[in-house]
Amino acid sequence: MQHYFINQVLSVKQKVDLPKDISHHLIKVLRAGIGDQFQMVSADQQVYLAEVIKITSQHASATILRPLNMNVELPLKVTIVSGLSKKNKPDLIVQKATELGASQIIFLPMTRSIVKWDQKSGKKLRRLNEIAKSAAEQSHRNMVPKVRYLNRLSELTKSAYDVKLVAYEEAAKKGEQTQLYRSLTAAGRGDDLVAVFGPEGGISPDEMAYLADYDFQAAGLGPRILRTETAPLYFLSAVSVLTELS
Amino acid sequence: MQHYFINQVLSVKQKVDLPKDISHHLIKVLRAGIGDQFQMVSADQQVYLAEVIKITSQHASATILRPLNMNVELPLKVTIVSGLSKKNKPDLIVQKATELGASQIIFLPMTRSIVKWDQKSGKKLRRLNEIAKSAAEQSHRNMVPKVRYLNRLSELTKSAYDVKLVAYEEAAKKGEQTQLYRSLTAAGRGDDLVAVFGPEGGISPDEMAYLADYDFQAAGLGPRILRTETAPLYFLSAVSVLTELS
Repeated sequence: MQHYFINQVLSVKQKVDLPKDISHHLIKVLRAGIGDQFQMVSADQQVYLAEVIKITSQHASATILRPLNMNVELPLKVTIVSGLSKKNKPDLIVQKATELGASQIIFLPMTRSIVKWDQKSGKKLRRLNEIAKSAAEQSHRNMVPKVRYLNRLSELTKSAYDVKLVAYEEAAKKGEQTQLYRSLTAAGRGDDLVAVFGPEGGISPDEMAYLADYDFQAAGLGPRILRTETAPLYFLSAVSVLTELS
Repeated sequence: MQHYFINQVLSVKQKVDLPKDISHHLIKVLRAGIGDQFQMVSADQQVYLAEVIKITSQHASATILRPLNMNVELPLKVTIVSGLSKKNKPDLIVQKATELGASQIIFLPMTRSIVKWDQKSGKKLRRLNEIAKSAAEQSHRNMVPKVRYLNRLSELTKSAYDVKLVAYEEAAKKGEQTQLYRSLTAAGRGDDLVAVFGPEGGISPDEMAYLADYDFQAAGLGPRILRTETAPLYFLSAVSVLTELS
């Protein structure tokens, strides 16, 4: 069933004039008619069943039928931090991290990043936030993860998190394979977790030392070398397996 | 360090005339010189340190210095079976499943597959096996996963596997969230595991019933709806987390 996010709080029996983008999608893409049903997620992350009650060439209205009591969010709030990477890798990271339950995705330039965003960051972020919204609709999330850009690593360490990890290939090479498991099984429901992933060339020793000063724990992600866009997907899957499936 | 696969058994002090593709990569891409070192994986999955001893315009030779005792393979042999999906999704599945440790990747048409390979399968497979090789080099695997094509689901059930799973969204919707964890934690080292993933439209009830007759267990992959190319990556990450990290 189609799943849309709307930027307002909803209540049962409410009639809603749907915003332009939802109207357009219902009318032009789905060719919906009166009586067609869909899911609508309110600003407070509640999912409701809604029904089309009026359609013109440009606008659609709906009525809210009932709450669906759906919650597919991870038990932890996970922030993925990704060193700027090349080509369409940020697109893939945002799409897949959204499907896999991330709450927030932050991109920032790191020492070994080859690309720069700087002035382009506004345009890039609009595009990435659109990708997040579309992926959140498709995976029936209760929220759209926020995609942000930070100018430098020192801006990240100003925020408070309950669990702080950094994926480190060198840790994996030295046989460090238990920190991730220990951190995730020890975390409490609702904890804020942040995990940092390097760009293509990895995280520099200086960056590792800096993060260690702020109590980030180095964690291996298994013995195979994962590409920069694959590591966050492994990590989010690990969060799900250890907090939702076991 | 560069990592190549060679289709012969190697031994220490052996001199090897490198095949065309490795010679080309060393000479033209890496611009290697005498004395440069790299990793070479023999047909029996042993990784050796090798050194360039001779270079002409077209060919390179190397000597095998010593075994590196590296093993990054998953403790289970995992076969990923993927219903034919559209566009470049099979490329992404092969690349990421290789990084994440799959032993074998099988594509087959399923009831809800929109695309057909049939006559094209030979060409498609050559391309996908190239992608697997390249990803296996990059993630420093001990083997290159084999990519295969089967004409129908009934060919799959002729092979014997120790653990047989099928990813089923409907199972997840009904709250089935423990089968994957139970199957993976109960599996023994070296077990052959197969997991089936549907195409974009999912697995049909008839296919589910057929697989159930052959003792495939339905397993949920968490509460979020994953795209056809994301589900196998979640699954392989789960295998790693539960067999390598805990």
